[in-house]
Amino acid sequence: MSKEITSRSENYSQWYNDIVIKADLAENSPVRGCMVIKPYGYTIWEKMQAILDKMFKDTGHVNAYFPLFIPKSFFSKEASHVEGFAKECAIVTHYRLKNDPNGKGVIVDETAKLEEELIVRPTSETIIWNTYKNWIQSYRDLPILVNQWANVVRWEMRTRLFLRTAEFLWQEGHTAHATRKEAIEETHRMIHIYADFAENYLGIPVISGTKTESERFAGALDTFTIEAMMQDGKALQCGTSHFLGQNFAKAFDVKFTDRDGKLDHVWATSWGVTTRLIGALIMAHSDDNGLVLPPNLAPIQVVIVPIYKNNDQLSAISEVAVRLQKELQYQNISVKYDNRDTHKPGWKFAEYEMKGIPVRLAIGPKDLENNTIELARRDTLSKETVPAGEVLNRVKYLLKEIQQNVFMKAKNFRDENTFTVDDYNEFKNILDNKGGFIYAHWDGTNETENKIKEETKATIRCIPVNNVQEEGKCMVTGKPSKQRVLFARAY
Amino acid sequence: MSKEITSRSENYSQWYNDIVIKADLAENSPVRGCMVIKPYGYTIWEKMQAILDKMFKDTGHVNAYFPLFIPKSFFSKEASHVEGFAKECAIVTHYRLKNDPNGKGVIVDETAKLEEELIVRPTSETIIWNTYKNWIQSYRDLPILVNQWANVVRWEMRTRLFLRTAEFLWQEGHTAHATRKEAIEETHRMIHIYADFAENYLGIPVISGTKTESERFAGALDTFTIEAMMQDGKALQCGTSHFLGQNFAKAFDVKFTDRDGKLDHVWATSWGVTTRLIGALIMAHSDDNGLVLPPNLAPIQVVIVPIYKNNDQLSAISEVAVRLQKELQYQNISVKYDNRDTHKPGWKFAEYEMKGIPVRLAIGPKDLENNTIELARRDTLSKETVPAGEVLNRVKYLLKEIQQNVFMKAKNFRDENTFTVDDYNEFKNILDNKGGFIYAHWDGTNETENKIKEETKATIRCIPVNNVQEEGKCMVTGKPSKQRVLFARAY
Repeated sequence: MSKEITSRSENYSQWYNDIVIKADLAENSPVRGCMVIKPYGYTIWEKMQAILDKMFKDTGHVNAYFPLFIPKSFFSKEASHVEGFAKECAIVTHYRLKNDPNGKGVIVDETAKLEEELIVRPTSETIIWNTYKNWIQSYRDLPILVNQWANVVRWEMRTRLFLRTAEFLWQEGHTAHATRKEAIEETHRMIHIYADFAENYLGIPVISGTKTESERFAGALDTFTIEAMMQDGKALQCGTSHFLGQNFAKAFDVKFTDRDGKLDHVWATSWGVTTRLIGALIMAHSDDNGLVLPPNLAPIQVVIVPIYKNNDQLSAISEVAVRLQKELQYQNISVKYDNRDTHKPGWKFAEYEMKGIPVRLAIGPKDLENNTIELARRDTLSKETVPAGEVLNRVKYLLKEIQQNVFMKAKNFRDENTFTVDDYNEFKNILDNKGGFIYAHWDGTNETENKIKEETKATIRCIPVNNVQEEGKCMVTGKPSKQRVLFARAY
Repeated sequence: MSKEITSRSENYSQWYNDIVIKADLAENSPVRGCMVIKPYGYTIWEKMQAILDKMFKDTGHVNAYFPLFIPKSFFSKEASHVEGFAKECAIVTHYRLKNDPNGKGVIVDETAKLEEELIVRPTSETIIWNTYKNWIQSYRDLPILVNQWANVVRWEMRTRLFLRTAEFLWQEGHTAHATRKEAIEETHRMIHIYADFAENYLGIPVISGTKTESERFAGALDTFTIEAMMQDGKALQCGTSHFLGQNFAKAFDVKFTDRDGKLDHVWATSWGVTTRLIGALIMAHSDDNGLVLPPNLAPIQVVIVPIYKNNDQLSAISEVAVRLQKELQYQNISVKYDNRDTHKPGWKFAEYEMKGIPVRLAIGPKDLENNTIELARRDTLSKETVPAGEVLNRVKYLLKEIQQNVFMKAKNFRDENTFTVDDYNEFKNILDNKGGFIYAHWDGTNETENKIKEETKATIRCIPVNNVQEEGKCMVTGKPSKQRVLFARAY
């Protein structure tokens, strides 16, 4: 089965697509740019949701739900939002179909035209701040710490499963605060939560930082991002947290009376991560045999496969397997015992390798005799034979070990592919021949940033937080610079 | 605060709306027919989701996600689906905005017109069966037991918060089976799960049965429903489960090879419940003081309110309250300790009464002296003073007791307002003067059903499962009938 996957070295992009399809994560739909998230892929999203949702609630956030549709005029209310935000979106203009008088099927009823077009939300700042206007009068109504799990639509021209789709699933937090300081603290809190989630659950090391002005969210005063390196050396933005200042409060006239009776506009943040994280997970860890999942996000952490020639053997093995399954489940480990007789062990091995199950246990007649179990780990593909009595502890240990290992592997890869460069030619050379992250001095202007982007396709991914301050010269213009910023080509 | 609510006797419809607004459950949005589900309302939905999702997974179902948009032509593929299904829907015709050359704001870019319009899903049978075509070749691929949690849009002309909104949230199960028998079993299984959920969690007694042909889901061979009685005597359909036969498999050409190598079309079911259940919850249990929630669905089951005059009193009370809170939480009871000093106890009492918190505990200086706690239950509004040492057990008992009581209250109300009628004039008389459920004989024809609907606004809610068979005469035409069916006016 692994032969069906294109190797990374042969065609990285095809390798990615092969894994998405062969591991049963998602597929393209008949609707351009929209994907079907298949059950196995969706289970990973459910795990992400459960973990993030708990992190949000533990920090005082609550969930709510706002309309899918946004009146067109709302987008014009915040000037930089409408200017900076992509105008590619799904537009609802009519609300009725009718039978086609000329034959079969249905056509749009032209008499049922909306007075004002509705936009399928590409993000919900406008409709939410229009709502907050009615929720906020006094400092007593603040802060509002609301999150929404929802689908959004951006009419992307070039789409790729999970990484860039017209419709995607995400969460969007929208908070309202009495002070600038509180809102900035919230912006930081959420990017920290995303970084924590990326490193400790996804097993993906990330660099946190702020975006340059040109890469900022439209309407934000500051955008924080977490940036991860994929196995082709390109960067993938994994989550953002925006300090929106009073921009949306001013656009939607949201004021509050503070403790001193003074009227002021409310301060805002927004932050989100999307189903794109499933793409990050694939690209960060998987290999030429298929998906590799960090145990903390694997829907199935352990699979048990019986190896048998007849029913007597199967029932003897099943006795051991089912007992082991229960013991593991009792330790909150998710275990599947695959005793299907419609597929052979070899097929199952390949299947679970493709699907990235972290630990595979195989039990055959020899194992029963010797009181052993064969244990294989997905990340290193190594096998060992373990005395049956030690399997439980070994698996518990291994799940932690694998989680740590996939993270360290990704971190080492990133470190090996991160460069510090002072010369623009060397910069281009590295991008073309090695790829990866490059720390370089930049003069801080839009012009230089654009020139670099046009000439090399690399963008400034972020200005890392707690960045080392050092005197330097912009690699392009030679103008003075006080710190290096992070460049990379990106998804 | 309770004075702000219109009473049920004064204006039932206004009473309902007042509760939705004053209990902070939801509000209307600027988008016609679309609601904002506020955090408190959304938490109730989250509880419903968690319970149902577990019920679905315990019966072998998995979640997936299908596109929001459905190509227009898909709706024409299943003839009765397009004929019977409402054609009021949101239609996406364009995919780009542009700056208005005549001034501020944005307008639709007419050059960005879709070749084929996209419909925002009103239900997903068509897109899902189009997808299943690629998933199913052999009996080994069956059954497919997939559920989706999603938003859907039906362009309703008259909307009411939760009960009927243009956009609503729901789950839709779509299963595929090798045999008719299996699909029918699945249809039954799911309506049983809905009935179980309604009675044991929502605390709402329901009558399960099948819809008549004219009330069936468009494309279904049989529709099962659960019907509940609201406090105005009207019926509310709380969930449906459809046996779709091979209709969608034929429309989308989904065939499989069975164990004998024979090719056949696949058998289908679909089933769903929506955010309308929050409306049912309100209408079934609440009173003129506000929301009444069954403990099994209450986001906060117990609230503790301190009654104090100074900080010394507060800190002494808090010691008892926090310990009690922890003890209750340890028993998996959700408890809020409201020690805010921005609001007085009276305000808090009214607030939690409005929000339907099942049990309220109040602790004052007198209670500290006497080692007691004041306990109030929301359903009966009765109070008692309990020795502090007995509170934990009393609360545990009461939560069960209240759950049982709201169910029995609703059941007694339904029984008192259920009538058996043989005469059409009496039928009309009861509908106009008492309302409620009426069991009556019907001749089984569409004509009679329509006549009754037109003349009385009552519809056949269902033909109850396991219905008593008895010889009788249709109350309208006098033609022979073998069983009574359930009539009511409905939401």
